[in-house]
Amino acid sequence: MNIILLSGGSGKRLWPLSNEIRSKQFIRLFKDEQGEYESMVQRVYRQIRTADPEANVTIATSKTQVSAIRNQLGNAVSVCVEPMRRDTFPAIALAAAYLRYEEGVGEEETAVVCPVDPYVENSYFENLKKLDELAKNGEARLVLMGIEPDSPSEKYGYIIPEDKEFVSSVKAFKEKPDTATAEGYLAQGALWNAGVFAFKLSYVLDIARRAVDFEDYRDLYLKYDKLPKISFDYAVVEKEPSIRVMRYFGEWKDVGTWNTMAEAMADKTKGNVMLDETAENVHVVNELDIPILVMGGKDMIIAASGDGILVADKERSGSMKPYVEKIVTDVRFAEKSWGSITVVDAEPGSVTMKVVMKPGTRMSYHSHELRNEIWTVLSGRGMTVVDDMEQQIGPGDVVSVAAGCRHTVIADTDLTLLEIQIGSEISAADKKKYELNGALFIDDAPDRWNE
Amino acid sequence: MNIILLSGGSGKRLWPLSNEIRSKQFIRLFKDEQGEYESMVQRVYRQIRTADPEANVTIATSKTQVSAIRNQLGNAVSVCVEPMRRDTFPAIALAAAYLRYEEGVGEEETAVVCPVDPYVENSYFENLKKLDELAKNGEARLVLMGIEPDSPSEKYGYIIPEDKEFVSSVKAFKEKPDTATAEGYLAQGALWNAGVFAFKLSYVLDIARRAVDFEDYRDLYLKYDKLPKISFDYAVVEKEPSIRVMRYFGEWKDVGTWNTMAEAMADKTKGNVMLDETAENVHVVNELDIPILVMGGKDMIIAASGDGILVADKERSGSMKPYVEKIVTDVRFAEKSWGSITVVDAEPGSVTMKVVMKPGTRMSYHSHELRNEIWTVLSGRGMTVVDDMEQQIGPGDVVSVAAGCRHTVIADTDLTLLEIQIGSEISAADKKKYELNGALFIDDAPDRWNE
Repeated sequence: MNIILLSGGSGKRLWPLSNEIRSKQFIRLFKDEQGEYESMVQRVYRQIRTADPEANVTIATSKTQVSAIRNQLGNAVSVCVEPMRRDTFPAIALAAAYLRYEEGVGEEETAVVCPVDPYVENSYFENLKKLDELAKNGEARLVLMGIEPDSPSEKYGYIIPEDKEFVSSVKAFKEKPDTATAEGYLAQGALWNAGVFAFKLSYVLDIARRAVDFEDYRDLYLKYDKLPKISFDYAVVEKEPSIRVMRYFGEWKDVGTWNTMAEAMADKTKGNVMLDETAENVHVVNELDIPILVMGGKDMIIAASGDGILVADKERSGSMKPYVEKIVTDVRFAEKSWGSITVVDAEPGSVTMKVVMKPGTRMSYHSHELRNEIWTVLSGRGMTVVDDMEQQIGPGDVVSVAAGCRHTVIADTDLTLLEIQIGSEISAADKKKYELNGALFIDDAPDRWNE
Repeated sequence: MNIILLSGGSGKRLWPLSNEIRSKQFIRLFKDEQGEYESMVQRVYRQIRTADPEANVTIATSKTQVSAIRNQLGNAVSVCVEPMRRDTFPAIALAAAYLRYEEGVGEEETAVVCPVDPYVENSYFENLKKLDELAKNGEARLVLMGIEPDSPSEKYGYIIPEDKEFVSSVKAFKEKPDTATAEGYLAQGALWNAGVFAFKLSYVLDIARRAVDFEDYRDLYLKYDKLPKISFDYAVVEKEPSIRVMRYFGEWKDVGTWNTMAEAMADKTKGNVMLDETAENVHVVNELDIPILVMGGKDMIIAASGDGILVADKERSGSMKPYVEKIVTDVRFAEKSWGSITVVDAEPGSVTMKVVMKPGTRMSYHSHELRNEIWTVLSGRGMTVVDDMEQQIGPGDVVSVAAGCRHTVIADTDLTLLEIQIGSEISAADKKKYELNGALFIDDAPDRWNE
């Protein structure tokens, strides 16, 4: 099965754990079968592998997520990166072209598209296989999976099927309704539209070809801005007469808010947390290395990260977006392909970050115009390269990098260092990348056209 | 007026803002007349100066508080440091000897003793002057100030006076009662015993002389362990037949818990805090540099510092002591005579702290056996001395100090540096102090026998 996972969003509704560069699907609050914490993307990937060990997984995403995907899934998945944010139709078209032209998947072979962030049971992925079969067998040009609703929710679009069979034709698609209207839909056997569909590659590629003339993946990548900025639902699904929908009866949760996330969390607390015995239905996630003590409280979510601290009534937490948008903070934590960075101090003229690298990884070879950097190794061993000068490094070693100097760090073991940036203007944009030893190593680049 | 302020306690009941080295009286949650934040000790000192600009203020305390006192009050007060913790009788006897022998106060002159941590109105200190007058005029050998109770509290000891006059003799002292008993006391016109008394120096010095033979302050300091470990109430007050009590009718608050502190706080929030409009009777103190967002919640106190984060029902917060005692964390913030230190990162083998120095100050000249230190200047100018080698420092400069090397920092301007400590065993005890330029500069030393 070829599966395209759509990994989008830079939601603030799970602030302070999600931010502009860390989407909710990368927060590790679930647990795998060995009891290790895992994120949504790790959970979904594991479930896919369980349902189909041979699955060919491609993640369609934006550039900002590549580091986190590589950090969490390694190189086992293909990552198809949109050159700019447009919408789901261009993203799916590009992913189809990636499968067709980069991976050599046949035009008449099928692909299943689904979002990366539903919290579901394993049977969901068994159903995807059935969906894939339906597409393969030509059941229709487009086959959807609809979620059997457990309530007349106002949060989702609805699919009205012709009948209540396991697989049926589609009578209509409906936008998010009010509750009364939703109740009417449910009486007709309606399903939630969860953005899951299967098709033959030729089907999507032909639609894309009608929008823009392209030869292969690289060509479409370069012409990406010519594709209409429109959702797959509007561009394709709602216009398609040859369409069938299959029912999914299992657990399906949209963990888009702290209230729903709390229900799905593996443990009531994560991190350094002490709850007294009078705390009632209180969930706490602590990513800081200082303790949180909770005395009393009811129906609350408490979450702390380097970005900030949230203390909220669970009910109220769904309304936090406008408040979070008022909070202007620089991102203080980011996963990189080679590890992570955490800002430990920031003041005018300097930023200090803790850099944690995995063994055998390296940063890009780069320079900054407007800041000096001073690295102090806290633990581990590796090498620095500064203006082509190599230096072995270990605990206590200090390496100074003046503005304008090219520099990188290569980790031999787990390597932790403190990077002190000093300059009047410190910004992520002040970065220029170079070749090192003849190779342009681009730490976050998923493919050769991504820079 | 000679006034002895007793500054004790290392309470955990205002955790995470109070800890072993930062007592509640140093937390800045009140505001002075200019709207600047001030601590309890700053507030009390300001109120004393308002009531009596000529007051001679001596703070009797332990070594751990000297840095914070100097940081907050400068050198305007005398600090009398007990060589070890014993109890209030030895502390008051030592302070009396300090006044007599170090400051040359006459044996027949008076002193007023009061705790440093009551939240009171200015009239309290006007009353202290009256109390001092009573002692001066020989009203009794010992004169007390009692607090007019506003409730039959179980939290305080009671003074039962002979009558309900403004100044009266004392019939009895009572330990903390239950509420019913307290109600009986109130019917008799009883007062709270708030540990405020005035006497002639000779009175206390003679009692101390009966316990241990000493010649002067220095002699008593060296024989301090011979003084009985007993409270002034038990050792002196409850045995004294010549005793009178004066009533205080004004506001008097014991801000020993978050519940009472919240009532006394100048503002509902302090620091980087956003409260939504549904939060009800929620107080938030944020000493971290990341934002706290509160959505909903009722009757809560939220407090965050480098030591940890508290989220508590106000009622419950009074019961936090056993929980806080289970939290074992190294102190992450400390006020020093020359500024402050804040731990920004700690892991096995290294501790990184931000050091903020005031202009014109210096650390002690010291060394460590088991750790190297690396200083990186973030902002400001000054000088380092490492094994007698002087070096001017400014932003971006790095100074490495190997284990065994003597070192100090002298700040010319406001100076901020990052100190990275690297070693297998990093402890505050690993510190040896030296003379620099012929002077043994002891940053925290209140007097010449304190090291």
